[in-house]
Amino acid sequence: MTQRINKDTRLCISLAARPSNVSTRFHNFLYEELGLDFIYKAFTTEDLAAAIAGIRALGIRGCGVSMPYKERCIAYLDALAPSAEALQAVNTIVNDDGHLCGHNTDYIAVATLLEQHAVPKHLPFVLRGSGGMAKAVAGALRDTGFRDGIVLARNAATGQPLAQANGYEWRSELGDARPGLLINATPIGMAGGPQATTLAYEPAVIDQAQVVLDVVAVPPETPLIQSARAAGKSVITGSEVVTLQAVEQFALYTGVRPSGEQIRRASEWSQS
Amino acid sequence: MTQRINKDTRLCISLAARPSNVSTRFHNFLYEELGLDFIYKAFTTEDLAAAIAGIRALGIRGCGVSMPYKERCIAYLDALAPSAEALQAVNTIVNDDGHLCGHNTDYIAVATLLEQHAVPKHLPFVLRGSGGMAKAVAGALRDTGFRDGIVLARNAATGQPLAQANGYEWRSELGDARPGLLINATPIGMAGGPQATTLAYEPAVIDQAQVVLDVVAVPPETPLIQSARAAGKSVITGSEVVTLQAVEQFALYTGVRPSGEQIRRASEWSQS
Repeated sequence: MTQRINKDTRLCISLAARPSNVSTRFHNFLYEELGLDFIYKAFTTEDLAAAIAGIRALGIRGCGVSMPYKERCIAYLDALAPSAEALQAVNTIVNDDGHLCGHNTDYIAVATLLEQHAVPKHLPFVLRGSGGMAKAVAGALRDTGFRDGIVLARNAATGQPLAQANGYEWRSELGDARPGLLINATPIGMAGGPQATTLAYEPAVIDQAQVVLDVVAVPPETPLIQSARAAGKSVITGSEVVTLQAVEQFALYTGVRPSGEQIRRASEWSQS
Repeated sequence: MTQRINKDTRLCISLAARPSNVSTRFHNFLYEELGLDFIYKAFTTEDLAAAIAGIRALGIRGCGVSMPYKERCIAYLDALAPSAEALQAVNTIVNDDGHLCGHNTDYIAVATLLEQHAVPKHLPFVLRGSGGMAKAVAGALRDTGFRDGIVLARNAATGQPLAQANGYEWRSELGDARPGLLINATPIGMAGGPQATTLAYEPAVIDQAQVVLDVVAVPPETPLIQSARAAGKSVITGSEVVTLQAVEQFALYTGVRPSGEQIRRASEWSQS
């Protein structure tokens, strides 16, 4: 019941150009499930500076940050946690009594999943993409010990500096490389997008890989993930990344870490 | 269930130095009762300008304004409705797509109650107090046609201009006046205050009156209201004022006017 909301209830929000319902449903489900006195709601804004000043002035506990605010918001914060400092991109703001600290739980989620799935660090990888999510993935690869990698991006202006900053090679075409770890951090395969049915990597490339990671979360079974499964490869889905980054946000805001079963049900509910 | 909150749910808030639960419970009860996709939560702030900029930037639909912000907030708004213009005091902000308009539902509530209780306009009155609520009451008395009145306030610096602005007489002591309408707009009789057990008017003065209006809402039965009832006078309680001003706020935010029975139950719930 919203009738339980009281003056001490903590509010968490998100800011996105096009808010979705997923995070609102995920967080509120877990607040209710765990009996936490919090509410969560997605917002959009045309004035990022004032929105963040409002978070501070109103004592809003936390804020998820989506495109196109992940980099621009940094100027309005008081500090960056190492996860955000490394990438210079924030997807989570935590407000401690007016002190706003930026975090990047995409980075944390990817790094954690690489460890949980025990992806061998000696595997050469290819990371397709050079946007915000590719930055988070590259940072996570570097900081978890992956040394041998290619950043595959047609855009040299973003691809080259991303590769260089992390000690990897930049390529605009994969050529004859056949890395063991394939990663897609572009919108290829995203439902509703112009490349919804496109494979992010050629079948022959998938065939030579051991592990495939796709950051596209909708649908969870992208063409790339489907092909990789069919070829018997290990997969890490975008849905896993999105869920884990949300759990990390949840823990930063509330100090509570839900059980695996609770996360599974919250995730299911948030996408229903 | 807070689990029903979604990205399109509208948020209304309040700003007060010391937030209470009353408005949060009142509004949320009615949202639930009427099936409106709104949530309400009280906030406090140490940075009024940033809080109001945040209301605009986040698209927060409305904001109740309490002490000590009722006058200071005007500088940050785009317009004043006649109710707030007359008093230069705002207790309600309505946000229409980034355009913030200040209203004063205390004024509206007092004016409405004077009409609903059919208080004769020819009655001489005495209004005790010269603070924000006294301003709202004086404006409502003036605009509903009460011509003959005394503003009773020990503080000449606030009492005199308030009386003058509305065409009334200022006095620091009641003297031998015995007005037909007695109004208390001070904290005298307020639960928990230093004058909780004090009568706002002498028994002999109450005895000569016809109607008594107290703006103190907690407790609803103040010493003044109790004495007036015991002496068989008509009474208008602070609880009526508070409830009606909240209903006016509710209607401004949602466009919906609850039934009398719904208001009664919301009011009961909000004070429980």
